[in-house]
Amino acid sequence: MQTVCLFVMLLSFQWVTGENVLIWPSEGSHWINLKPVIEELIERGHNVTVAVHASTVYINYSEPSSIMFEVFDVPFTRDRYKEFFNDILHFWIYEKVILSYGDLYRRFTEMIRTGTELNRQICDGIIKNHKLLQRLKETKFKVLLTDPINPCGDLLAMKLGIPFIFTLRFSLGSSMERFCGQLPAPPSYVPVVMSELSDKMTFTERLQNIFYMQLYTLMNEWFWHNWDAYYSEALGKPTTFCETMGKAEIWLIRTYWDFEFPRPLLPNFVFVGGLHCHPAKPLAQELEEFVQSSGEHGVVIFSLGSLVKNLTAEKANMIAEALGEIPQKVLWSYAGEKPKMLASNTKLYKWLPQNDLLGHPKTRVFITHGGTNGIYEAIYHGVPMIGIPLFADQPDNMAHMKAKGAAVVLSFISLTKQDLINAVNTVINDTSYKENALKLSRIQHDQPMTPLERAVFWIEFVMRHGGAQHLRPEAHSLSWYQYHCLDVIAFLFICLAAIVFAFTKCCMFCCRKCRGTREKKNKVE
Amino acid sequence: MQTVCLFVMLLSFQWVTGENVLIWPSEGSHWINLKPVIEELIERGHNVTVAVHASTVYINYSEPSSIMFEVFDVPFTRDRYKEFFNDILHFWIYEKVILSYGDLYRRFTEMIRTGTELNRQICDGIIKNHKLLQRLKETKFKVLLTDPINPCGDLLAMKLGIPFIFTLRFSLGSSMERFCGQLPAPPSYVPVVMSELSDKMTFTERLQNIFYMQLYTLMNEWFWHNWDAYYSEALGKPTTFCETMGKAEIWLIRTYWDFEFPRPLLPNFVFVGGLHCHPAKPLAQELEEFVQSSGEHGVVIFSLGSLVKNLTAEKANMIAEALGEIPQKVLWSYAGEKPKMLASNTKLYKWLPQNDLLGHPKTRVFITHGGTNGIYEAIYHGVPMIGIPLFADQPDNMAHMKAKGAAVVLSFISLTKQDLINAVNTVINDTSYKENALKLSRIQHDQPMTPLERAVFWIEFVMRHGGAQHLRPEAHSLSWYQYHCLDVIAFLFICLAAIVFAFTKCCMFCCRKCRGTREKKNKVE
Repeated sequence: MQTVCLFVMLLSFQWVTGENVLIWPSEGSHWINLKPVIEELIERGHNVTVAVHASTVYINYSEPSSIMFEVFDVPFTRDRYKEFFNDILHFWIYEKVILSYGDLYRRFTEMIRTGTELNRQICDGIIKNHKLLQRLKETKFKVLLTDPINPCGDLLAMKLGIPFIFTLRFSLGSSMERFCGQLPAPPSYVPVVMSELSDKMTFTERLQNIFYMQLYTLMNEWFWHNWDAYYSEALGKPTTFCETMGKAEIWLIRTYWDFEFPRPLLPNFVFVGGLHCHPAKPLAQELEEFVQSSGEHGVVIFSLGSLVKNLTAEKANMIAEALGEIPQKVLWSYAGEKPKMLASNTKLYKWLPQNDLLGHPKTRVFITHGGTNGIYEAIYHGVPMIGIPLFADQPDNMAHMKAKGAAVVLSFISLTKQDLINAVNTVINDTSYKENALKLSRIQHDQPMTPLERAVFWIEFVMRHGGAQHLRPEAHSLSWYQYHCLDVIAFLFICLAAIVFAFTKCCMFCCRKCRGTREKKNKVE
Repeated sequence: MQTVCLFVMLLSFQWVTGENVLIWPSEGSHWINLKPVIEELIERGHNVTVAVHASTVYINYSEPSSIMFEVFDVPFTRDRYKEFFNDILHFWIYEKVILSYGDLYRRFTEMIRTGTELNRQICDGIIKNHKLLQRLKETKFKVLLTDPINPCGDLLAMKLGIPFIFTLRFSLGSSMERFCGQLPAPPSYVPVVMSELSDKMTFTERLQNIFYMQLYTLMNEWFWHNWDAYYSEALGKPTTFCETMGKAEIWLIRTYWDFEFPRPLLPNFVFVGGLHCHPAKPLAQELEEFVQSSGEHGVVIFSLGSLVKNLTAEKANMIAEALGEIPQKVLWSYAGEKPKMLASNTKLYKWLPQNDLLGHPKTRVFITHGGTNGIYEAIYHGVPMIGIPLFADQPDNMAHMKAKGAAVVLSFISLTKQDLINAVNTVINDTSYKENALKLSRIQHDQPMTPLERAVFWIEFVMRHGGAQHLRPEAHSLSWYQYHCLDVIAFLFICLAAIVFAFTKCCMFCCRKCRGTREKKNKVE
């Protein structure tokens, strides 16, 4: 009987199918990166439900799909939400570099306030919707997968009493990973995300790194503070935003060691960068013909990402002029007005099959804004890059690629025609860029299992075992001073001080005694 | 052309066969754990050569085998080497607990000196044997696999100009991992190996942990210091033992998260505990009959490891008497004289198919000395344990199993008959032990790939790419004060002091000015 039991137990966790998975998604590239995971889960027989608010900008819940959508209302329109994103974009690309410190602070805090308010309304839409919560509870989800960049996913999981997993590219200064996930990050060789530093830091850079770390920590404490009361109220017990996040079973980090600098990690941090990448499919005939017409010079793929639909006419023309002066053919993904200076070697496309083009043997360079998804497609196919980073983590991402010798980085604001021409020529003529891109590609391809398989393995692991507590460090139970052993150090310091004090007193006593004896002797003499 | 190149490059690293692998082995259980890796490498078509000295105790190089042995001479006999091991064993099991601190120190340093001398002679046997070195060089090995517990493997790899990989259970206080591998180990929740502490530590235990960490660090610095000059001379440049070790491409650590407490790791630290485990094979008829005769009570497997051949008659009889009083049948792996008190339910065996017995459904408890290999077999098959640890890491290993609720631990020195009876009854009757052992078993079985596959993957990875530098943290290039950012902290402190000083001076100047004006005013008045 026992044999059968053990056998069944050992077998039972090898396969999990037909389980219910709940997703609390984020917008934009975060959603793009989550979709392959959802598709793989569905492919493996699971039922995936995405809980999404009705005014989402990037998640198309109305088209027929194998994903089930649980749509809930929020008190703002899609246009209002879109306007918020455009506002962030405009601030980051154009305003950040020209505003005074005072205005910068005002604009920034205003945006954070708006963002927090919108997120709170989204959160209310599900957490305070008892009927919906009850329905979700009845569905008996086995796990919730969420991107913590949007709050509330962890809270929803706690309300439903199910384990949750994070999928995360980064948080500001890695504060979530460091404070809520207990991930160690020695500032001497772990550059803070958004610092644009590499792991090889000079004294001044280490000073900068520490400064960024402290600055981002302060900023995060301020963001999080807004949520502490909300989380406590929702859970009916005093808690914090960070404490709730710390209950994540697994942190799926959307990078890998081709992109990251080697750094300490924890057993429950799984690096799955490049999970959306896949071999290139053949191009449509018209596209293939254009690419083939490039001859031995090959083609350049140019995209500033799905968020940037328009450039100023001046900027677009300058770029078009520069592209016209290179011998390559150029495929430019751009939804704005056609620049007047567009040369015959350049074609504009509203949308491009970026992955298939990057995997095309004629592709020589990828000019990119430096979003992680695009960078990973370039890494996957071994294509060197020219980065024109715009906002968020993009400058930092490109700093990584530059440090690894696979990219040249240009400034969007001060970009000149000659800069762009020089960059293309450098990346194409200096073979080290291609070699380094191929090296990164080899690292990405040569893993024990693909990043997507790894991500799905750990999601299914949590479903099989109801969690992954055996990977969660005990650091979560320690206070900050216990974590750094400051109480032990203080105790040792007190002991040392007591010993020194006692020793000094003894010495002084002995000296006095000796002096007393000598004086007595002198007196007698 | 470029397409073909990229395709060939991407394909070429997927498979490596027929490469030459060099092994620098260790003795005893270390060799037992290395053999499955060697066998798997041979199975995958590689040519494995083990460089071993002629007086090895545990490595049988004279029997026909698919492993190639490169045997070299040393100026001591096998009996001398065996005597050294027995001396260590005797010291650890019997002397350690009765010697005074002075004698303990004398015996310990004497053993370290003998061990260092023997190791130096082994090292000389290959490093100063130019003919052999030349032959090894000509074989064009792709990688060297070594257990750093015996020095010289890394040095040999450096002399041959090939990358090397460590396979390691632990070093004293994890000093090698911490100082040479740069593995972070916060003492607040990472118990030092050999401290017998768990990750849940009280204030006093954290104090103890820090004490052990410092003690073992000092001891290691003393051991390593002996080797610095040797390594420098051999490599013809000033270096240290630890610096050379730090050049390892991968550290294969022979534990996993079923055994370890969750702790920070580095990308080039791969946990492969349990790689030697495999499903149980059917028992020989005589053994199966004896096991089946146990009925519903089942059997107890008892082994104190391959190193302990003899016990005192008194100890052996006491154990035999205790085993006679339990309702289970007992299979005792023991090569010593048959104890007079041996009961009919107990059978002695010179050797037992331990893995097959632990995997037998009738097995209820494993009484073990707590060697990692045996513990992993018990974990693999989900068998609860009674630990009677004897030496080295065994007490610490059993402390891990006790903390995870899968074992009861007894003292070998103060062991009484009743202790053993109670322990067997507790582990069998309290079902939590079996449940926890099964939980560990599930963790061991439910991994993305088996530990053996993982170990071999990374060995082949290093062969495919000539290293794994993309996983090596930049911490290796930092001095200790840079690593801890002490220079930055000192700079900030000086800045702060300067500001405070300047501010104080300003205040004093203002005060003086004010006082001066007031005095003048008073005078005028």
